[in-house]
Formats: sequence, C-alpha cells, structure tokens
Amino acid sequence: MKLQTPTFLINEGICRNNIRKMAQKAKDSEVIFRPHFKTHQSAHIGKWFKEEGVSSITVSSVTMADYFARHGWKDIFIAFPFNIHEMDAVNHWASQIKLHLAVESERITRFLEDQVQFPVGIYIKIDAGYHRTGLQPQNKEEIERIINLCQTSSRLYLKGVAAHFGNTYQAKGKEEVNQIYREAVLQLLHIKQEYLQQIPDFIISIGDTPSCSLVEDLSGSDEIRPGNFVFYDLMQMNIGSCRFDEIAAVVACPVVAKHPGRNELVVYGGAVHLSKDYLTDQYGNNIYGQVCKLTDKGWKQPLKACFVSRLSQEHGIIYCSGPVFDKIQPGDFVGIIPVHSCLAANLYPIFQTTTNKQVRNIHTIQ
Amino acid sequence: MKLQTPTFLINEGICRNNIRKMAQKAKDSEVIFRPHFKTHQSAHIGKWFKEEGVSSITVSSVTMADYFARHGWKDIFIAFPFNIHEMDAVNHWASQIKLHLAVESERITRFLEDQVQFPVGIYIKIDAGYHRTGLQPQNKEEIERIINLCQTSSRLYLKGVAAHFGNTYQAKGKEEVNQIYREAVLQLLHIKQEYLQQIPDFIISIGDTPSCSLVEDLSGSDEIRPGNFVFYDLMQMNIGSCRFDEIAAVVACPVVAKHPGRNELVVYGGAVHLSKDYLTDQYGNNIYGQVCKLTDKGWKQPLKACFVSRLSQEHGIIYCSGPVFDKIQPGDFVGIIPVHSCLAANLYPIFQTTTNKQVRNIHTIQ
Repeated sequence: MKLQTPTFLINEGICRNNIRKMAQKAKDSEVIFRPHFKTHQSAHIGKWFKEEGVSSITVSSVTMADYFARHGWKDIFIAFPFNIHEMDAVNHWASQIKLHLAVESERITRFLEDQVQFPVGIYIKIDAGYHRTGLQPQNKEEIERIINLCQTSSRLYLKGVAAHFGNTYQAKGKEEVNQIYREAVLQLLHIKQEYLQQIPDFIISIGDTPSCSLVEDLSGSDEIRPGNFVFYDLMQMNIGSCRFDEIAAVVACPVVAKHPGRNELVVYGGAVHLSKDYLTDQYGNNIYGQVCKLTDKGWKQPLKACFVSRLSQEHGIIYCSGPVFDKIQPGDFVGIIPVHSCLAANLYPIFQTTTNKQVRNIHTIQ
Repeated sequence: MKLQTPTFLINEGICRNNIRKMAQKAKDSEVIFRPHFKTHQSAHIGKWFKEEGVSSITVSSVTMADYFARHGWKDIFIAFPFNIHEMDAVNHWASQIKLHLAVESERITRFLEDQVQFPVGIYIKIDAGYHRTGLQPQNKEEIERIINLCQTSSRLYLKGVAAHFGNTYQAKGKEEVNQIYREAVLQLLHIKQEYLQQIPDFIISIGDTPSCSLVEDLSGSDEIRPGNFVFYDLMQMNIGSCRFDEIAAVVACPVVAKHPGRNELVVYGGAVHLSKDYLTDQYGNNIYGQVCKLTDKGWKQPLKACFVSRLSQEHGIIYCSGPVFDKIQPGDFVGIIPVHSCLAANLYPIFQTTTNKQVRNIHTIQ
C-alpha cells in the first residue's frame, strides 16, 4: 500500500461483505433496508450498496441529501428533526425525488405543510427510550395532531414513525441489546396499532447498528436504517455488534517519534484524524483507538496493550507494552482501529482502499 | 446575518485585534513572531496577519505548509516531528521558500541530511515538561549529535530549539502559567548557553497560547508561535488567557427541537460541528460548549446555566435553565462558544464573518 500521511484505509471486501450481510438480513426479516449513509458519506461506496439492491437511503442532513441526490439517489429520508431554514433545498429536491423528513412537533409540521410545494413523506420521530430527541410515545395528542395534519394535507403524506434506539450503544452483548430492542419496538407498535386501520401502510422505522446486527428476530420493525455497520469500529466490537474481522476501516498513521522512558510512540495522527471519541478500559484508561500492524493487504489483529492514550490536534500518543514497543521505529506505519468510525471517516476528504483505490466522498476537494 | 446550517462564525474585528495585540506584544518583547496557522488554516485570515507585518509562520503538517506556500508565504516552520514519507514535498518547497523542520533524533536528522537537496532550517524539539514529544533536555548526547550533524551539513542549518509548553493548558490563571513558563524556558536556556558561542544566532522558540497571552516578561524566548489566540475559546477563557470579549469565534446552530420535561434543546450542531473536546464543570458535568444569544452583529455574553451537555454526529443537546429555556424556540439560532476552537474550525470548509463575508480555508471545496 502506498502511504505517506494519515490515511483512512478501508478493506473493500470486508465493507462489501458487511453490506451484503445486512441487506440479506433485511430481506430474510422482510423489512425495508434503508441504510444510513452518514457513516461513509461517499457516492463511491453508495454504488456498493446499489449493487446489493439498495434503492432507498437515509441521511442526517439536507447537505447529505443534496450530495446523494446529485449522485442519482431517488429515495432519501433525512432522519433529523427538520431545520426550517433549509426549506428551499427541500423544495428543490422534493420536486425531483422521493424525499422524506422527520418531524416531532405540530408546529414544524404546520410550517412544512404551509411551505412545501411537492409531495414529501413524513416520519414522526419517537423517543423510544434513548432520550436524545423525539416525541414521547405517551404524547398521543401531539402525535394525533401531526397525523391529522398529514391526512388532510395534499403534499405531506405520513410514512409512519421513526426511532433511533441509541441506548444500545451503552449496552454490552446480544441479550442486553435484544432487551432494549424489544422494549423500544413495543412502544412503537402501540402507536402503529392505533393508526393501522386508518393508514394501512404505516411503517415502523428503526435505526441503530447494535440492534440491526444483534437482534435475530426483527419482527415489529418494517424498516431498518443502520449506518455504522458498513465499517464497524472499536465501539461496536466492544458492544458485541461485530467481530474484529468485520471491521472494515483503520486509520494508517506514520510513527514520528519514540520515547523509551515511558513506552510511548508518537504518530502523525491526532484529533483531526481520529476524532476525540474514546472508550474507557477496565483500568480507567481512555482509549482513543487500538493499534494493529499493517500488512501489504490490510491489517492484523490488534496488538496487545497497545493503544492511543492521548490526542492533540495532529499528535497521537500510543502507549505500547515492551516487546511490541521495541519492534516499532519512527518511519513505520501502524494501523489505528478507530473508536467511532463515523466521526473518524468524516475527517477525510478521501478514503483509500487496501488495494490502493481512491474513494471520494462528500468532502472531496475537486 | 444570513444563517441556514451550523456555521463557524467569526468576528473579524475581534480576530484582527487579537492578531494586532499579539504582534505588538512580540515587538515589545523583542521576540520573533512566528504565529501558528493550524488554528485557522485559512489563507484569507493569513492576510490579516500579513497586514500586521507577519512574514514568518508555523504550521503542523507538510500539507498545511504546501497550502500556505502556494498562497505566497515564504518562511514556514513545520513544527511537528518530521515524517520521512513526505520528503518529496519538503524538497519541492525547500527549493522555493525558507522551510524549517523539527527533529528529535539523530536518526531522522541523518535521513534528512541524506535526502534533502536544498537548505532547510532545523529546530531540535525539546520536551520542557509537557511530555508529549521532544528530546529530554538531559539527553545532551543526542542533542549534541544533531547539532554536529547540522554544523557539518551543507544543507541543514541549525535554527535552535523549539518547545511547546502544553502543560499550561492544565493550568489556571496567570501565576501558574508564569511558573510553568519560567521553569520550562530555563531548561531551554541551559541548552542555548552551551552552544551560543558556537552558534551565535541560536534561538529558543516557544509556542503555547496561555504563555504568550499571560506571561508579561517573555525574556528567555527568542521566538513565539502561538496559534489559538487568533480565535481563543472556552478552554482559554477558563485558563485565563483571554476575556470573553476576546473570543472571536462561535458556532451558530439552529434549534430543531425542544424537550420541556428535561429542559433540553436539540440543535443541528453535533460532534462534526464542534468536535468532542469538553471541559468539566464544578458539578462534574461535561461541557461541550457554552450557549449565547446571537445578535445582528455578533453574539452576547454566555447565557447562565445553558451549555451543550451531549453530542452525537449531528445532534447537540443543550441543557438550559428555566427562564432562558422558555424564550428559545425551534427555528431560532443560538451561538455555541466552542471548547477548543482549533478542532472546531478544522471541521468547516468555510467560515463566515459576522458581516457576512465568506472566509475560505484549506478545506474549501472549489
């Protein structure tokens, strides 16, 4: 592999496998697969999804919707509470593709009904226990008002409810994730049951990678929107959503200095290359990434007791136990398995595959 | 101000004042002013420095050196341990401008001496107490070997020693910062004294914003390389490096949802707009930014008990005490004073001034 500077390295084979498996799981579970593209933000990787039969996608901003619509995607759900200041772009794309928005108040829905000039699908965002955002399932009056607005609107049409079970990110293992999934989906089913007669194609759309990876029986959901699974990462491996050999991305960094007195390596690879998301290990250490060896074709298992312990803007400090430390010299490249691949990927204007292909994304400078 | 999406908003007047004051301080202290451009990474803002007489600059990567050299800068110090994989770019620019590199081992210096085709200035990176990277001042043998290599080289010439007193970022107030500065600079002076007769223009180059802002008597240093002061931020205000009215940047974010039950606002403005750097307040809360009101011409004092408490990729969760909470509605824009302006600025392909000018930077997509 040709490497000079910190590089977001992806293994196309693993990546395509992750996509294929999730697409197959959706098929087997008879749910719509509407993958979230916020993790890769890349039209190039979008094609790999298309090759697996994907035609409907999720994004988290109007900017991303605009990017993917310009790259030929015709069915896009912006799964983020609608920002009224982006009405013009919404109208522009609603005239050309199937566009869907998330709302969580009557007030914003009314604004939309007033301003939108073309058909737009509406998902009501429900807070099924994560408490980030969304309407409480108990708030039946507000849900009813939004549904009524859509039912009488000539342009807004109700798709159903959408939720993100983000509390699975705090879970550990299959059982705990399954339990969160069951409890959350039950709340959405109660809402659906109330409206099913009135709206026969009412759907429940759910989104997190741990649920979509670990819940075998996805019944209850009609649509899944996982995003992170395309690359996975240390956090997902820690939850149990993936095995190490399913992680499709590492950040390759050159070692630039070595400090034997404290068993530390300095890499060119800082907060602007990894993001500052971290995990805490059993000893209370903050882990900003785990270190692995790079090979000609990719990377190996993580090195034992070798992790990124501190980050400044461009510096990464790796703590490394003795035997491994002795073998690494300034000038070597190491792989860093990112804690959170979504945030790390967002920092690169281009990704590189282990077969030296350049993968363009939304940040690519022409 | 015209705002639609999360915007890195800068007040040009405050920014220019920060530059002017630091340039004046350097002049009064008779030290070379070689500001670090990693904070803004903008050729546009670079011009504001040029207007204050700045001609020599610091950057933290070859990529940044390349960008600023293409924008006419002729004297650039890459204050980062040299990465041997970027030799070609170094040779390219060394043939055209005054380029300076940081080294901290004989091995890498020897590599450079072997590969470099044009004159390059060398700073020896010294660890004066921060323990991020650099040679220990006690490691006289290695320092001597690097100096000897430069003295016998026809292309490498020694500038002196460079250090970053990054431990001032953990300090609180003028006195503590002064103490760190004094102790650190003393170690560099010992090295300088040993070589001054041999190398009469040996310089001590130091870099952190707290020292450069709070130390009145900069004697001992010959060159200062602060960067963050151009914008300042919450972290610097917390240390005492700046007053609130010297902070030149906020992130403007639209409110998209409101949760009265838990006094939380949701803004379009997440980890990809603010970075995940945080401060911890006296109650143990993580603070990812403080919230202020925006005005036609800028922003006001921070609102009391109103701060960003959680971040996901695009969502920011603001905790907000009662009276203020009632006055903010979805659709309003709020200002978020970033914890760490360097990392936040790095996330924007363009900045906007409070007078609606667009400021391009290294990430600008043409």
